Amino acid sequence: MEVVVNAATSVDGKLSSRAREQIAISGPADFDRVDALRAESDAVVVGVGTVLADDPSLTVDSERRRADRQARGDPPNPARVVADSRLRTPDDARILSDDAATVLLTTAGADQARADRLGSAGAEVVRAGEDRVDLSAAFERLETRGFEQVMVEGGGELIYSLFAADLVDRLSVFVGSLVIGGRDAPTLADGEGFLDGFPALELTGVERLDDGVLLEYVVT
Amino acid sequence: MEVVVNAATSVDGKLSSRAREQIAISGPADFDRVDALRAESDAVVVGVGTVLADDPSLTVDSERRRADRQARGDPPNPARVVADSRLRTPDDARILSDDAATVLLTTAGADQARADRLGSAGAEVVRAGEDRVDLSAAFERLETRGFEQVMVEGGGELIYSLFAADLVDRLSVFVGSLVIGGRDAPTLADGEGFLDGFPALELTGVERLDDGVLLEYVVT
Repeated sequence: MEVVVNAATSVDGKLSSRAREQIAISGPADFDRVDALRAESDAVVVGVGTVLADDPSLTVDSERRRADRQARGDPPNPARVVADSRLRTPDDARILSDDAATVLLTTAGADQARADRLGSAGAEVVRAGEDRVDLSAAFERLETRGFEQVMVEGGGELIYSLFAADLVDRLSVFVGSLVIGGRDAPTLADGEGFLDGFPALELTGVERLDDGVLLEYVVT
Repeated sequence: MEVVVNAATSVDGKLSSRAREQIAISGPADFDRVDALRAESDAVVVGVGTVLADDPSLTVDSERRRADRQARGDPPNPARVVADSRLRTPDDARILSDDAATVLLTTAGADQARADRLGSAGAEVVRAGEDRVDLSAAFERLETRGFEQVMVEGGGELIYSLFAADLVDRLSVFVGSLVIGGRDAPTLADGEGFLDGFPALELTGVERLDDGVLLEYVVT
């Protein structure tokens, strides 16, 4: 399984403001690049914070790309996967639409009635870990399910946890030409943070895109 | 007066870990670039948090560059300026050494005995603002003093405040190839953060340097 983290940040590393509202960081060229990356993925993963803040659909926007997927025997959209330890995904979240399969990664302790309800809404509920989602175990389950190419779209808590679990293979960051600021604004990698043993990356690509720059890394 | 902010961050926008210890983010080529930038500056500004965390000297490392400054009639090192609202700069801070002039920007309410003591230690104390340093007024005072080229080296609280006061002309960020993580780790721009009217930048330079990339912007 290859895990690619993709995100757009301000120059100061923020994914959004402290109000956690979506901010236009990138532009049409980056949107198209992200759509292509989604179309090449078997699954797109986000944390529940992103579902609650942005209510994304995570589907492929380009009709041609969806048709290409179907032509090669894939569903039109990649599966949507949410890391959701307490099953806070709302019943009416866009991510539960019929446009694609939805998998909720949760914990042994998550409420069964809530799991049943989200199951009725079309999601598959996968339990791994006690209080927090055991991402290593959960991602193994995703691999068993046949997900080979996995894209992670945030937020910063999930991205940090994936780096901490040594599950990230590649990282693409579009750095937009703006400052968001805020000691409480979400960043590309939040969580507890590393004190040493910082994940080291190799810069493999630098490309100007829209009014910013796309930085591509492999995790070494 | 031209104000240039210079910083080195991880891919996730952090200046250091949540422990606020210095981390090797850049390498020899970036150190040399920063030394050249210092040598071209009349003053180097930091926040007191940076003095307390790192105890920097902020002097020019290259003997040749110091000699070049003196040959053109400048002191060997730029003045060191600390934004220090409550005069927390320690008496034995390196920034108070005889190697360069030192200016402490503080508030009307800062303790006079503390100001006298730091004055005896060689610093000039400039008061602007009541509870917080009025950076616009303070920077005007710096300009009156003849500081035309001013470099800001952090930390994230000061950098945010300078953007909020519309005092920044250029921004240079070396993005190192590592992830630091941490929702409490200092970022390039902390403070309250913007909710709208985000300072817009124009990306003027993208250059691979050491194992990372140097991004240069002008504030538009």
